[in-house]
Amino acid sequence: MTKVLIDCDPGHDDATAILYAAHHLDLVGITTVYGNQSVEKTTRNALSLTALLGIDVPVARGCEQPLLRPFRHGGDVHGKTGIDGAELPAPRQDVVDSHAVDFIIETARRYRDELVLCPIGPFTNVALAMRKEPRLAGWLRGISCMGGTTQVGNTTPVAEFNIWSDPEAADIVFRCGAPLWMVGLNVTRQVGITTHDIERLEAGGLVARTYGGLFGFFRQRLSEIHGLSTASLHDPCALVPFIAPELITYANCPVEIELGDGLTRGMTVCDFRNLTTAKLENIRARATTNCQVAISVDGRALVDHIMEAIVGWGDAGGAIGA
Amino acid sequence: MTKVLIDCDPGHDDATAILYAAHHLDLVGITTVYGNQSVEKTTRNALSLTALLGIDVPVARGCEQPLLRPFRHGGDVHGKTGIDGAELPAPRQDVVDSHAVDFIIETARRYRDELVLCPIGPFTNVALAMRKEPRLAGWLRGISCMGGTTQVGNTTPVAEFNIWSDPEAADIVFRCGAPLWMVGLNVTRQVGITTHDIERLEAGGLVARTYGGLFGFFRQRLSEIHGLSTASLHDPCALVPFIAPELITYANCPVEIELGDGLTRGMTVCDFRNLTTAKLENIRARATTNCQVAISVDGRALVDHIMEAIVGWGDAGGAIGA
Amino acid sequence: MTKVLIDCDPGHDDATAILYAAHHLDLVGITTVYGNQSVEKTTRNALSLTALLGIDVPVARGCEQPLLRPFRHGGDVHGKTGIDGAELPAPRQDVVDSHAVDFIIETARRYRDELVLCPIGPFTNVALAMRKEPRLAGWLRGISCMGGTTQVGNTTPVAEFNIWSDPEAADIVFRCGAPLWMVGLNVTRQVGITTHDIERLEAGGLVARTYGGLFGFFRQRLSEIHGLSTASLHDPCALVPFIAPELITYANCPVEIELGDGLTRGMTVCDFRNLTTAKLENIRARATTNCQVAISVDGRALVDHIMEAIVGWGDAGGAIGA
Amino acid sequence: MTKVLIDCDPGHDDATAILYAAHHLDLVGITTVYGNQSVEKTTRNALSLTALLGIDVPVARGCEQPLLRPFRHGGDVHGKTGIDGAELPAPRQDVVDSHAVDFIIETARRYRDELVLCPIGPFTNVALAMRKEPRLAGWLRGISCMGGTTQVGNTTPVAEFNIWSDPEAADIVFRCGAPLWMVGLNVTRQVGITTHDIERLEAGGLVARTYGGLFGFFRQRLSEIHGLSTASLHDPCALVPFIAPELITYANCPVEIELGDGLTRGMTVCDFRNLTTAKLENIRARATTNCQVAISVDGRALVDHIMEAIVGWGDAGGAIGA
Repeated sequence: MTKVLIDCDPGHDDATAILYAAHHLDLVGITTVYGNQSVEKTTRNALSLTALLGIDVPVARGCEQPLLRPFRHGGDVHGKTGIDGAELPAPRQDVVDSHAVDFIIETARRYRDELVLCPIGPFTNVALAMRKEPRLAGWLRGISCMGGTTQVGNTTPVAEFNIWSDPEAADIVFRCGAPLWMVGLNVTRQVGITTHDIERLEAGGLVARTYGGLFGFFRQRLSEIHGLSTASLHDPCALVPFIAPELITYANCPVEIELGDGLTRGMTVCDFRNLTTAKLENIRARATTNCQVAISVDGRALVDHIMEAIVGWGDAGGAIGA
Repeated sequence: MTKVLIDCDPGHDDATAILYAAHHLDLVGITTVYGNQSVEKTTRNALSLTALLGIDVPVARGCEQPLLRPFRHGGDVHGKTGIDGAELPAPRQDVVDSHAVDFIIETARRYRDELVLCPIGPFTNVALAMRKEPRLAGWLRGISCMGGTTQVGNTTPVAEFNIWSDPEAADIVFRCGAPLWMVGLNVTRQVGITTHDIERLEAGGLVARTYGGLFGFFRQRLSEIHGLSTASLHDPCALVPFIAPELITYANCPVEIELGDGLTRGMTVCDFRNLTTAKLENIRARATTNCQVAISVDGRALVDHIMEAIVGWGDAGGAIGA
Repeated sequence: MTKVLIDCDPGHDDATAILYAAHHLDLVGITTVYGNQSVEKTTRNALSLTALLGIDVPVARGCEQPLLRPFRHGGDVHGKTGIDGAELPAPRQDVVDSHAVDFIIETARRYRDELVLCPIGPFTNVALAMRKEPRLAGWLRGISCMGGTTQVGNTTPVAEFNIWSDPEAADIVFRCGAPLWMVGLNVTRQVGITTHDIERLEAGGLVARTYGGLFGFFRQRLSEIHGLSTASLHDPCALVPFIAPELITYANCPVEIELGDGLTRGMTVCDFRNLTTAKLENIRARATTNCQVAISVDGRALVDHIMEAIVGWGDAGGAIGA
Repeated sequence: MTKVLIDCDPGHDDATAILYAAHHLDLVGITTVYGNQSVEKTTRNALSLTALLGIDVPVARGCEQPLLRPFRHGGDVHGKTGIDGAELPAPRQDVVDSHAVDFIIETARRYRDELVLCPIGPFTNVALAMRKEPRLAGWLRGISCMGGTTQVGNTTPVAEFNIWSDPEAADIVFRCGAPLWMVGLNVTRQVGITTHDIERLEAGGLVARTYGGLFGFFRQRLSEIHGLSTASLHDPCALVPFIAPELITYANCPVEIELGDGLTRGMTVCDFRNLTTAKLENIRARATTNCQVAISVDGRALVDHIMEAIVGWGDAGGAIGA
């Protein structure tokens, strides 16, 4: 079973990724980072989620700021707690002693050639780990991230929040040489929880009801702020290649991160020219294909698959106040 | 009848734009610029085209270099002459005395509020004219350009040749305040002359045969270099809003030009966030909508419409050696 | 006698440059540009100065904005008129019909190999002229500008006003290939009119008294805004190589203009490494020496030389109301 | 006695800084980084130097690459070993278990409010430590670095090697909020070991002879590559504020690091406008003074002071092969 370490900032869709990974894969650790809220809050949320789900997964706290620029968190979409919409149980475990940067390094060393690293928040922890331990990229089976977009952005016209939050960190990760899968907004916005799905969850057990509450809040905010009609399940998409690979199509493509201060800072610049042309030897020669970029998804099937994991989750572990 | 001044670098598709404009509109002038070839060659080609078509339109020679960076022309696609594939007649007129920059200013002053300016090469002439005569933008009915892309580029992963050739000039034009229509590669690549179309032209009169030869060469090069199966008629698309507006759909959208030296130099950064969302007041508030951006086309119908103009053109004016 | 065309934005020190040039050289024209004030005001000032000095020199009006960025004029140092501190006579001539861009081109063509072009305001006119007429640089004897600095700036920590106002234009001029002399703040701030000098002028004839008034105002503002104790005669320094070359020492040096949007936009990046080292073949090989950069001045002697020109100027031409 | 942690890339002048600090201050640790050579070599050199000097100071190995860009080491000046010119003894201790990043954090926590951190190589270790432990800057008594320049650079026309090697890391450090002293090339190039000094060292004991050999090589390379006549003792200058503060004059000044990709990448942009003017309230209001910048030095006195430390060093600890 694929071993996965999720680096995240829960976050509604992060919460879904944790459940989805714990259901299908060997989730060997969770590291936290600023992003959807401060690292204090995202760490507490991660601990509460492991309590809710009744899973025994170590959580390591990570960075509170990007490499370079002061950060303003994305609290407008995820609310004051970073995961508004349902009451989560209090944490039942503490974070591990290791900083996320070290926990990532140690875990990759332990599970050499087996570990898939899933950054689904800003990439700061992973980037610092790579600079502290240059062998890290070589130890990984791969990196599968949620971040970027091939079309419209959500933070600027062309940039997505996770990458835009720390473009320099993303640049380090995208150049690291490990096998890399990127699923961006162009795909994840097609994976939307509907009000019908939410009603179905609210009729379920504690875990399902909790996720229903979270999705209800999240859908409402995405509707108000971005005009979307469904709640995009961005983050669990990063796990799909290891759970249900037939649901998302990836294309092999050179991707670089724009670091300049102009209009396109934090853009995932994908060179799709070789996808649309037959003879491009001279252009291709310059480009290094470093990434599998998600280009299409069976959105409804993926939502159903994720719903199944939530609905099927037992409630033993997480009764509030239990 | 709409008065049009075409600023161009013929160029196979420029040649088509000239014919298409002369057929349907009041083409009051042609100005030339470096681009598909040196300005010497594009100017000679423009003069030869007026000879071929037997039209009496003044041609003014313009700039030979972009505002800032030394330029390498795009001769690989358009061949050594800038319009390889058919023998054009020798010019029968000379360029006018005015430099293109002044000719643009004078023409806009003469036809105040009536003139549509169509830049279909690099924007250097138009930008210089705007800086020399700050009232120019206010005199125009509008600017309808071929340039940029909302998706894949042809010169870099995200930049199109005309804009990339002189991004600073394009920035001046995109900020000028005049009504602006932009048709980019995302649309123009769907307007492709097929080998069947070419065969039909080659069976026609002199003008049709000449354009058939040009398209044959152009299609071959686009196939070899960009892997395309048809010859994209980029430039005539800029005239469509004034000839057959039903064929191309435009969306109102803020567009800015990236001037930084990074991965995205020369990108037409379109803010499509307001097209995909319902409530975006806070984001929209920051953005100034300055452009109508072409987003879809009935490609086959447009090719047929252009074909009709070519096939229907009389041959009186342009017999080689006549 | 050296033929000089001054491109300027009078401006107190521009006024001094005009007098100094008219006294010693063949001043064949004045072109105006936005800068110390709007181009309306700097043009009127130039015309008033020719009236004051009783000189018959054509004045051509130029650009009102930089190539790219909207401009805020430097009125804080030069006052509301752009040349506060003394009442200038009304203009006695009108501007010529040609735009400054064309006047520069025409004058350089007429006096081929003889003309020294002196840009002492933002470089927009000269840059546009070079792009409109690519042969212009080759027609000039040289370009001697006031702009930039090798040390501290006055508009940003490292940028001087004239260059910072239109860095892209300066970049065009610094790459043009013509012999180039640059005198920057590092030298011109050592050429300071003292209160004693001003008193001496105020005891003189009409022209001297007028310049005394101008310098009094200018010294006061430079004191208040930049903490200087004397009134820096920046602009006349650009004429020194052709009048009194022994007073300023120039060093041969590669100079490039920083165009990025960061901390150093508009900086004149001088490569002085070859001035301080003995063996630098490998570094020098990359650099093209394009400029004579002023590095030292006999400030007091130059002030005296300029004072002499002012004091010695006859008053016949410029009586107010005459 | 001031507690100092030196973060370095020995390197000839780093070797001198270690001796000078060990002689006068409480040197509580040495961390190593790529720079003058690979981190393998600089680490070995640091260990060999502690053996030569017979000092018991922990050495922690650090980063091998800058945050963002692939690095080419500066081996041309310091030779193949990074410290050519004398045979150093084999290491007698191993590096500590902690990575330099963690060692810096741990040491600052242990000696809270007492520790001066002296980065005299690229700033990567310190920057990573600050991002991993955001409280680090608040724990330090100060940071005194060798890096940057107020005038001419050695790696580009305006950038110095340590800062240029990792500008993003330097940016993190310069914004960290801790008291900051910067001594750059403008001062350190005035602190030059002469051939006479070298002869004097070569007549001394083992340590003196070893440093004499190192300086002989270093002086020769600086002469060949940069045309200097003496061997600049860059790095020990960073310790002077805590040993002999009267020898270097510092000025309070805002300093920022240029991160753009243009001509000035890695420049330490110092705002010296407030040093040369009397009334600058409006300008000063925007600037935050974050740094004490070295602006002058009694070079000969400092060389003598350093020479004294070397010559006076006993040789007990470091006999080769002992």
